[in-house]
Amino acid sequence: MRAPAAGVGDRADAIDTPALVIDLDAMERNLARMAAFAREHGLRLRPHAKMHKSAAIARRQMDAGAVGVCVQKLGEAEALAEQGIADIFISNEVIAPAKLERVAALARRIRLAIAVDSALGVDRLAAALKATGSMLDVFVEVDVGQGRCGVAPAAAGALAQQVVSHGLRFAGVQAYHGRAQHLRSAAERDAAVRHAATLARTAQATITAAGIACPLVTGGGTGSFAFEAAAGVLGELQAGSYLFMDRDYADNEPTPNAPVFEHALFVKSQVVSRGHAHAVIDAGHKSHAIDSGLPKVWGLDLEFANGGDEHGILRARGDALPELGATVWLVPGHCDPTVNLHEHHVALRGGLQQGRVESVWAIDARGRID
Amino acid sequence: MRAPAAGVGDRADAIDTPALVIDLDAMERNLARMAAFAREHGLRLRPHAKMHKSAAIARRQMDAGAVGVCVQKLGEAEALAEQGIADIFISNEVIAPAKLERVAALARRIRLAIAVDSALGVDRLAAALKATGSMLDVFVEVDVGQGRCGVAPAAAGALAQQVVSHGLRFAGVQAYHGRAQHLRSAAERDAAVRHAATLARTAQATITAAGIACPLVTGGGTGSFAFEAAAGVLGELQAGSYLFMDRDYADNEPTPNAPVFEHALFVKSQVVSRGHAHAVIDAGHKSHAIDSGLPKVWGLDLEFANGGDEHGILRARGDALPELGATVWLVPGHCDPTVNLHEHHVALRGGLQQGRVESVWAIDARGRID
Repeated sequence: MRAPAAGVGDRADAIDTPALVIDLDAMERNLARMAAFAREHGLRLRPHAKMHKSAAIARRQMDAGAVGVCVQKLGEAEALAEQGIADIFISNEVIAPAKLERVAALARRIRLAIAVDSALGVDRLAAALKATGSMLDVFVEVDVGQGRCGVAPAAAGALAQQVVSHGLRFAGVQAYHGRAQHLRSAAERDAAVRHAATLARTAQATITAAGIACPLVTGGGTGSFAFEAAAGVLGELQAGSYLFMDRDYADNEPTPNAPVFEHALFVKSQVVSRGHAHAVIDAGHKSHAIDSGLPKVWGLDLEFANGGDEHGILRARGDALPELGATVWLVPGHCDPTVNLHEHHVALRGGLQQGRVESVWAIDARGRID
Repeated sequence: MRAPAAGVGDRADAIDTPALVIDLDAMERNLARMAAFAREHGLRLRPHAKMHKSAAIARRQMDAGAVGVCVQKLGEAEALAEQGIADIFISNEVIAPAKLERVAALARRIRLAIAVDSALGVDRLAAALKATGSMLDVFVEVDVGQGRCGVAPAAAGALAQQVVSHGLRFAGVQAYHGRAQHLRSAAERDAAVRHAATLARTAQATITAAGIACPLVTGGGTGSFAFEAAAGVLGELQAGSYLFMDRDYADNEPTPNAPVFEHALFVKSQVVSRGHAHAVIDAGHKSHAIDSGLPKVWGLDLEFANGGDEHGILRARGDALPELGATVWLVPGHCDPTVNLHEHHVALRGGLQQGRVESVWAIDARGRID
């Protein structure tokens, strides 16, 4: 495993490249803004930890009022629980019996929740919990427009009924619309969220019609949370990326009257080769994910082109090309899979230029896709 | 860190998902085919280990005749040397003095080579080696059409002169044209390789004109090695992906009279959610890289759509959709960054359906982008 790219107390210019670096001041402002938003709107905040994968950061979010965290994978839940995070929602389906045994074992140790969207999944979950003698919260996932996991709204009542009939703790509905968050115009996001809210209300109605209380609807994300708060269905927000704010979310047209988040996650890189009309940096797509597009260069008006796994290629635009050996900071296109490439967060206090490393946090759940 | 997805002796169907799985029989056939090709053409083979990142696999390649391996990063070299690989070429530029100290330290322990493409790089490398009292092989990298690192062919002699004047061991020219390998038509690849060969010959001529012997030209890759062998300039092939063969290379029009390689690297996944017209598997782009396009489904005619970090979405085409819980095998679009997402290679003997796990190999250099 790679050693941390810097130690506590190091200056920014001593951080080895390429490295994942957090601007801690910006991150804390983002943290406070979302915590305040949730508080002011009377919403629970359960940030998605699939984004940062770090117990140290999850703890800071919970210290600021979050009720716990979401993860997308059982392995992430195990890794964070191992580091002391004790309230976790696996906002995804688990179907393999061997994995459900692990779910049941974890439910003995922490407050755990999980999503279901099939009769088979509920049956197997119930069997695993019964064998272990453990219990957890079960959310019925409803497809509210994403077209991925989740039952149709009209089928939510029947699945909730099955959850209850097995003696499991029915906790409500998961209504997450990931694609809505990346619609560029605010009006499109608003429309998608309104439609999702209608579908979530239908699901709620089928559940209460079955005589089952629906305590909570959980969902929402960084691109849409203000619309979701306005739509009034969600009781809990799952937004995660607000903390680091990647290039892709920042490319959205801002949501009116919503808090604004700053870029707080960067890849520090260095020019390792220099041609007449281009510079090559030591960061390629093994340093930053490109599923949501290329990173942008921070603080300099330069064109970034994909140079492969280990290289990025810069060309002059408004600014001149940096010289051989110069530092170049990148804002990743998408935080989540970028974080998943690295072992540590290097957390800088006092800015990218003059700052010093205040903390180095393990990315506890890196690679925990299991 | 994630535990291995299976243990030695496990059946294929017991491998946890998602997991990176090698079809060992196919890999060994690929290994033998490339080794035979190099032998028959009188070429040294120094496969790129940036692809598999595993000392266990590097050893198998060297047992079959490879002279050593290439890596792209110092951190990869350190990780593989730690596991006993003793002949490594860092086929890339290193410019930071702190990293060059590590290069010099590593050169005391193994036979090491490195590429240079700047006067500053050579000066700093020489200073680090002098301070440590170590020595290594230095290749002058020449840009033969890739447009990334490397000096212009006409400048190779002057840089070789500088290498020699510092008392360093000048070992030859690196002439790698990565983009040539991904040109779809064989004729285009042939033309790009011929042009690269002309430029490499120019570089050689400027070096010998400076009174310096040029012992070796190294380069080549899986998409172009047969053309490179025919062009007659290279003395050493760096191809790596032939061993696993990803979807992207297989999409190339085959090179006439060249050995054919089989897919040997797979991601095992499972259906975790099932709609009327789609199935959702537990493998997204945290399980397989998508920089060179999406994976293809292996053995079933299904459409694959990107479902985000943790999900893939399947739709029926020639075959019916798999049921909830079914296993689905994917062929990654690009091996190198896919391997870099995982901690272990699970190596299966006897095929994907009926095989048993023969070995579990650590991906020693995972994340070693430093």
